Amino acid sequence: MNSFGRLFRVHIYGESHGKIAGILIDGCPPGLPLKTADFQKDLARRKGGKAGTTSRVEADTVVIKSGHFNGKTTGAPLCLEFSNQEMRSKDYEIFKDIPRPGQADLTASQKFYGFNDFHGGGHFSGRLTVGLVAAGVVARKIIRPVSIRARLIEAGGEKNIQKAVEQAVKERDSIGGIIECRANRVPPGLGEPFFDSVESLISHLIFSIPGVKAIEFGAGVASAGMKGSEHNDLIISREGKTATNHAGGINGGLTNGNPLVFRLAVKPTASIPRPQLTFNLKTGRREYLEIEGRHDTCIALRIPVIVEAAVAIVLADLLLLRKSQLV
Amino acid sequence: MNSFGRLFRVHIYGESHGKIAGILIDGCPPGLPLKTADFQKDLARRKGGKAGTTSRVEADTVVIKSGHFNGKTTGAPLCLEFSNQEMRSKDYEIFKDIPRPGQADLTASQKFYGFNDFHGGGHFSGRLTVGLVAAGVVARKIIRPVSIRARLIEAGGEKNIQKAVEQAVKERDSIGGIIECRANRVPPGLGEPFFDSVESLISHLIFSIPGVKAIEFGAGVASAGMKGSEHNDLIISREGKTATNHAGGINGGLTNGNPLVFRLAVKPTASIPRPQLTFNLKTGRREYLEIEGRHDTCIALRIPVIVEAAVAIVLADLLLLRKSQLV
Amino acid sequence: MNSFGRLFRVHIYGESHGKIAGILIDGCPPGLPLKTADFQKDLARRKGGKAGTTSRVEADTVVIKSGHFNGKTTGAPLCLEFSNQEMRSKDYEIFKDIPRPGQADLTASQKFYGFNDFHGGGHFSGRLTVGLVAAGVVARKIIRPVSIRARLIEAGGEKNIQKAVEQAVKERDSIGGIIECRANRVPPGLGEPFFDSVESLISHLIFSIPGVKAIEFGAGVASAGMKGSEHNDLIISREGKTATNHAGGINGGLTNGNPLVFRLAVKPTASIPRPQLTFNLKTGRREYLEIEGRHDTCIALRIPVIVEAAVAIVLADLLLLRKSQLV
Amino acid sequence: MNSFGRLFRVHIYGESHGKIAGILIDGCPPGLPLKTADFQKDLARRKGGKAGTTSRVEADTVVIKSGHFNGKTTGAPLCLEFSNQEMRSKDYEIFKDIPRPGQADLTASQKFYGFNDFHGGGHFSGRLTVGLVAAGVVARKIIRPVSIRARLIEAGGEKNIQKAVEQAVKERDSIGGIIECRANRVPPGLGEPFFDSVESLISHLIFSIPGVKAIEFGAGVASAGMKGSEHNDLIISREGKTATNHAGGINGGLTNGNPLVFRLAVKPTASIPRPQLTFNLKTGRREYLEIEGRHDTCIALRIPVIVEAAVAIVLADLLLLRKSQLV
Repeated sequence: MNSFGRLFRVHIYGESHGKIAGILIDGCPPGLPLKTADFQKDLARRKGGKAGTTSRVEADTVVIKSGHFNGKTTGAPLCLEFSNQEMRSKDYEIFKDIPRPGQADLTASQKFYGFNDFHGGGHFSGRLTVGLVAAGVVARKIIRPVSIRARLIEAGGEKNIQKAVEQAVKERDSIGGIIECRANRVPPGLGEPFFDSVESLISHLIFSIPGVKAIEFGAGVASAGMKGSEHNDLIISREGKTATNHAGGINGGLTNGNPLVFRLAVKPTASIPRPQLTFNLKTGRREYLEIEGRHDTCIALRIPVIVEAAVAIVLADLLLLRKSQLV
Repeated sequence: MNSFGRLFRVHIYGESHGKIAGILIDGCPPGLPLKTADFQKDLARRKGGKAGTTSRVEADTVVIKSGHFNGKTTGAPLCLEFSNQEMRSKDYEIFKDIPRPGQADLTASQKFYGFNDFHGGGHFSGRLTVGLVAAGVVARKIIRPVSIRARLIEAGGEKNIQKAVEQAVKERDSIGGIIECRANRVPPGLGEPFFDSVESLISHLIFSIPGVKAIEFGAGVASAGMKGSEHNDLIISREGKTATNHAGGINGGLTNGNPLVFRLAVKPTASIPRPQLTFNLKTGRREYLEIEGRHDTCIALRIPVIVEAAVAIVLADLLLLRKSQLV
Repeated sequence: MNSFGRLFRVHIYGESHGKIAGILIDGCPPGLPLKTADFQKDLARRKGGKAGTTSRVEADTVVIKSGHFNGKTTGAPLCLEFSNQEMRSKDYEIFKDIPRPGQADLTASQKFYGFNDFHGGGHFSGRLTVGLVAAGVVARKIIRPVSIRARLIEAGGEKNIQKAVEQAVKERDSIGGIIECRANRVPPGLGEPFFDSVESLISHLIFSIPGVKAIEFGAGVASAGMKGSEHNDLIISREGKTATNHAGGINGGLTNGNPLVFRLAVKPTASIPRPQLTFNLKTGRREYLEIEGRHDTCIALRIPVIVEAAVAIVLADLLLLRKSQLV
Repeated sequence: MNSFGRLFRVHIYGESHGKIAGILIDGCPPGLPLKTADFQKDLARRKGGKAGTTSRVEADTVVIKSGHFNGKTTGAPLCLEFSNQEMRSKDYEIFKDIPRPGQADLTASQKFYGFNDFHGGGHFSGRLTVGLVAAGVVARKIIRPVSIRARLIEAGGEKNIQKAVEQAVKERDSIGGIIECRANRVPPGLGEPFFDSVESLISHLIFSIPGVKAIEFGAGVASAGMKGSEHNDLIISREGKTATNHAGGINGGLTNGNPLVFRLAVKPTASIPRPQLTFNLKTGRREYLEIEGRHDTCIALRIPVIVEAAVAIVLADLLLLRKSQLV
């Protein structure tokens, strides 16, 4: 349930305010050079502390606990762990009775019969995406020379992101955003018809990122309003290069050798500084709730590197799968 | 690779112009009443032969080959098969050299090293969704009293669907569409944080349906332009009923007891009657291709029932999983 | 639950007295030459009709229902089916109340809440091993030039198998046997430490064959009585060839390049012509039961080819896995 | 590859001389009371330091790193870790060129292309079974009131175990042993026909324990020499209690409500104090190797509690699966 992948498999664990956040990677090929410094750049991109993001800033120092020897992966499970140090847990008890709107407080309790660790969102917290980013660093080494680049192209409905963020901070509110991701040099023929289509696998992992509410590939939603004669991409080379890329680099669920392109929508952070009306489960009455704590005004600012990691993880798995089927 | 699910598992097989299209269901609980007549209504909704759809009309008579005894499921794998009878295969050989734009002709050949059955799209064909619909009929019995309803709400960019279809037929072109799906009476607490979030599992299966290029849950793409104070749904009951449903019935990847709501975009059918420019792999030159054969002007017309089946399959799996964790 | 394998995956379905017995193979590489005649030799070795085996002789004509095109596998799921024609079902109803000793009549009913198809043992029947043998034929093509050979080396406790069988027929009883299997030219380094050790995977599949009650690798049970100095195999070449083979070709769960050797014990057929004492679930009293029907005096005679198929399936999966990890 | 189970899933990681040995448990139901003291008794049974076992004695203090809150499991992945402290790694480098006979030195290098951590056997070491024992402690809580008890019934071919061990120590050699395991109060109907038979799943996990070379259920190997009329167990109650238990508590791959009984053979420890002849990969010549370090004279002494854990893990998974199929 907390695992993803067939050959390059990631297992996610940990809690926001528990001891650690971790990721266990199975199926990583042996002999990949790997050192803790390799993780720094991507981990830094995910960190809070910048304008519009949370003031909780964890050191995010990766500890390689297993599967690593003489500076290389060994082929045994690679365990990557991050300790939690900047927690302030005292105030979460109240959310058991007065669930925060838009959060998983109530659903988590319903699923786990009230036994879930609710501090800081527990196992549901975006804190755990630190592990995804770390797995992405490893996956990128497997898929070379594929390059993946995601960026926030819009926030709060505006193209001027900085302005939108400043406005939201001022209003003690939060905003969402649109992220676009492109992967270049993806070989053709990755993916499977039907259940393991490239769209299926990528969307599966992208929707694991807290806050994502929509995804579209290539022309995406706009496709629905196009004619076939407009939408079809003209092939212009034997390798399958196309003149346009309405398909987003995918035909029949398989990569077609053109850039893989998709966009996703991130909702605004649920926890906002403003008082909000919510429901008291004990009294059965509505009441105002003021959420203290440190939250992202625009969580979407921190998500592009997580999106890149997700794509790298999917492509690493598909590339290993393709190698197994070479004839 | 052609399997989906953990406890209620479906395995898809068959080809468009081969002997059969089939679905093998493992993990179906024993004792479910099931007869061939149960499949008729949903299979009929998927059929061609109506305005804007293909003139290839298969009988779609389900054959229950295993896992069934005395009118009930037995708990052993349930094999459902459909014979193919209305094929016209002669004209597909040409697409090996002159791939149809927007189709999987080239990518399928790249993936399977040219050994794929290319007639009618082979294993990539929408023909195989007949099996998904059949599995959906079984899944609906497991998830009672959940009700699922999908409908085409827009085609070719227009709300007047009939008009849009007629126009496309006249233009010898094709159009896409937007489908909305709602599931009611879904119990809260289904799904998992992270990898098996409800959005992850539903999108995984929805993107298995040929032609789907986008999906959004609840407020979806619009979320990205909303403030947190607008987007958060006000809880109004102990069970978690909310006043609005921007979350689409999902918080933290788990169902929250409100209606599950999502929309998807279907691209226009790639095969159109008009001549189209494409690339001749042998000569290395562009040339016009006229695709004969019977194709859907608006394949989106046939997809709602497949979407419902996909949701039923996901929810059946999650409900069985939830039963296993009851404390 | 009815699936085995990670990359070369087999899904088993069907019933003894239902329409068919089938096997669905996913992950079979494209381009393998395959024709129905390829299956004949192995299927013939599994058939009844010979001395000591059942008089139910099915035609066992394989029907390739999908995944096959122009005489080769396509890479899409390969569905192999066998119709059942020689059933005589009338007499099984009685076993619901008076379960046959040593059979799954009672446990199957307990598991499936009485909804199981009990005719001829239903989904529990050795009839389904016809699919395993068929999958083995495909797997052998993948693992070339590995050769696998299993043979019955003892029946009813005697090395003179024919004599033991004749004696058991005369006594209207049944006997078990010991089968030895050897695989040559197995490359080193297949398997995984811990959960997917070669012994783990082979034993998993071997114990899927009805009637198997024990397995030992290399020196096996005798190892327990040996000294380390006796048991350790002396390495005599850079490739790892050893002077003795007490390890049965496996060290640390991985193949070591020496012949893979194991033995298994098959219990005597539970259904025997003699009257046997059993329990009437309705009356709560013991009574004698005379089992009519056609049964094997020594089912172990038919099992060697199934054992070979099981090993081929495991090795095919491990070889594909190894290819995916090539560095 | 380092994962086992469908609903109660264990992921094993770590190395003998690395930082840690760990086990990650997914699918553990929420609300199970769990404290570190619960692990002590079973972990103590596995420890070295007693006559005939290694003098490497690790503290084996379990650290619960995730999935635990207020003294109970939360339903999120439960991570259990053990730090390694008593390593002496200096002498292992030599085994890269001069592989120890009977060990995985050469096969591990062949599998992982020489990148494996070879100190103390790395990821192949029995050290990692500490995690299995820990997972067993958790699993036992799920399967209550099932009781499981394994014991060493023979070592070095003798029933007088102490004497056999003393003799082996004196001879600077090692010995194997036979372990018998019984589980009582196992409910009927667990397991699956074919691939997930109880024998398949138990043998899969038992053969994951380093050193196991054979397993037999019920009458086991002796079955092969019995008549059907002798082997069949007489049913004597409506629940399926039998007068004898040749079946070892399993019919048709499913538990039948009688005690689950099996035996396994453990080979003698490969590493012995005596000099042994082996092969120098560099020179291509045989030479004597004297293995220093701390090793078990009779590793079988430490295995019973690991066997119990393995059975508990399998039964926990099957019980959760059964709950999911309740009708």
